[in-house]
Amino acid sequence: MLSHPSQTFALVQKHDGYSGKSEGPSIESLDLYLDAAEIPLPDLADGQVLIKMAMASINPSDLHYIKGEYGHPRVKGAAAGFEGVGEVVAGNGSYAQSLVGKRVAFTVDPAGSGAWADYAITAAKVCIPVRDDMRNEDAAGHVVNPLTAMAMFDIVRKADTGSFIMTAANSQLCKLMIALGRDEGITPIAIVRKPEQAAHLEELGAGHVLSTASEDFADSVRSVIKQEKPRVLLDAVGNQVSADLFAAMPNRARWVVYGKLDPTPPTFREMGQFVFMEKRIEGFWLTRWFMSTPLEEQIRVIGEVQERFVSGKWQTEVSATIRLKDAMADLADALRNADGKVMLVP
Amino acid sequence: MLSHPSQTFALVQKHDGYSGKSEGPSIESLDLYLDAAEIPLPDLADGQVLIKMAMASINPSDLHYIKGEYGHPRVKGAAAGFEGVGEVVAGNGSYAQSLVGKRVAFTVDPAGSGAWADYAITAAKVCIPVRDDMRNEDAAGHVVNPLTAMAMFDIVRKADTGSFIMTAANSQLCKLMIALGRDEGITPIAIVRKPEQAAHLEELGAGHVLSTASEDFADSVRSVIKQEKPRVLLDAVGNQVSADLFAAMPNRARWVVYGKLDPTPPTFREMGQFVFMEKRIEGFWLTRWFMSTPLEEQIRVIGEVQERFVSGKWQTEVSATIRLKDAMADLADALRNADGKVMLVP
Repeated sequence: MLSHPSQTFALVQKHDGYSGKSEGPSIESLDLYLDAAEIPLPDLADGQVLIKMAMASINPSDLHYIKGEYGHPRVKGAAAGFEGVGEVVAGNGSYAQSLVGKRVAFTVDPAGSGAWADYAITAAKVCIPVRDDMRNEDAAGHVVNPLTAMAMFDIVRKADTGSFIMTAANSQLCKLMIALGRDEGITPIAIVRKPEQAAHLEELGAGHVLSTASEDFADSVRSVIKQEKPRVLLDAVGNQVSADLFAAMPNRARWVVYGKLDPTPPTFREMGQFVFMEKRIEGFWLTRWFMSTPLEEQIRVIGEVQERFVSGKWQTEVSATIRLKDAMADLADALRNADGKVMLVP
Repeated sequence: MLSHPSQTFALVQKHDGYSGKSEGPSIESLDLYLDAAEIPLPDLADGQVLIKMAMASINPSDLHYIKGEYGHPRVKGAAAGFEGVGEVVAGNGSYAQSLVGKRVAFTVDPAGSGAWADYAITAAKVCIPVRDDMRNEDAAGHVVNPLTAMAMFDIVRKADTGSFIMTAANSQLCKLMIALGRDEGITPIAIVRKPEQAAHLEELGAGHVLSTASEDFADSVRSVIKQEKPRVLLDAVGNQVSADLFAAMPNRARWVVYGKLDPTPPTFREMGQFVFMEKRIEGFWLTRWFMSTPLEEQIRVIGEVQERFVSGKWQTEVSATIRLKDAMADLADALRNADGKVMLVP
């Protein structure tokens, strides 16, 4: 094992466990949840690698997590950040050591040390060597959004439907799924909050873009659903708009919840639709996809992800790149105003 | 084809189509929806039989239907009643004629003529010849409740769970499922409205009976769910109590909606559970079970149903038997006060 730095500058969690709240991922001020600090790096356990960060992405799941509203509990004193790209500088174990010197995209599990840092620690087996022709901007968000897009689009593909609805459709994740729909001839129907987001999404391949801010939103929804008969709703919002979309959808419609951007709870006025229309509500969580998908299939999908980015079928739209040392002051504002991804760099 | 009566006394629907309301199956007064009248019986179409009624059952689905809140539209002037038992007195076609003289249990589809009548018409292929040792009280409700019980209990059986929750558990349907749970060692947890219903359900085999009327209902729910970890909720009610039960259930819980006894819409405060806990909501409708289950499997299940009734493992508890001619005056009251099935006889 190579020697390596014994500490790192990082954005460090201030709280343990769950908050018990359901506020959603909006961040008023980062220092409610994080400190910028030097923290010790533990020795690498067997199978772990140390990564010198090149770029970390910021996903809604990161924000849910640091607020204590995610699927596993926070750890006080540990660095935040689930995903990024960087160079492996040390490894413990033969496979881990074989990655030294390679540029890898990766996610961090609770046994490692977070990606919003100069150095991160994760399991070698979740590191994905990145092709030289893939940009850091694409590699930093290689895993969470692209694999979620692929896996959720697979639900659409198998659902016997000619179209699908997405809420919060201006997200980077939805832009990836819009491109998949466009390429495979399954019409993406995009629900956004601001009408000015429509033109760009249509350019990317959305068949319809409907803004919740427009006065005729309800009428437009009804007429588009009547025309396209979408059977899948991919929903990051989970509010009454989502519930009303689902109620307007045809027989056998599936509401796939993968986020809760709006903390307001929805009310269900059409319980009979579960019985007579064979509708259902379920969820998607990438962590579960990893646990339930065979490794060969994961590798195949990852290869397809790299190919899509390098060929230009997918593009990561970056709206801001923030230096780690400026994050406490600038990150919350950057997220509030972001129309694309916000990235962190050392 | 034998000659047969050209008309029948029946309870006849006053309205066409859907009501557009969601009031649930409670009936204030029967004459809001039905008239007692003589109606013409059409000639038998190919494959149909004419049945001289012995007894008709009354299910919540009948009441949803006559109120215009069911999965298919009402037909003004047609007799109500989905299910019953009687003797085949005429048939059109060779299989239909082969049933003449037999006692059969049956359901009526929209092409036939309803069972709340002296004579009913249905398809020969949905008639189930009844063993001589089966009582009319059990045969009249041979199809809807027992097959629903079998099919929904099959969901429980396949759900990798040691227990299951039922709402409105004092129903005849739930009593059948309690017996199935008892016989197969999967603990039934019964939710009822009145504490005095507990003793009888415990005697039938319920592991726990919790009354929504008791002051410590919420605490009892929490402690029973913690102890038993039920993963299936079979729900006929669809209100906030159901939603709160579902929210309290563990990972991978399924909420199977099959009725909407309470028209109040529930609110979902835990959308994140779809994502992180792999929960889901779906529905059950016997009509769909018939369409999606191979005929051999249906026949096997029907044989098991007869065997369970004849052997005494199942019993239909009848709380009132009303003559057809008294139904307009007496049926609504009988339903309101029923602790078991209400039956109609000529």
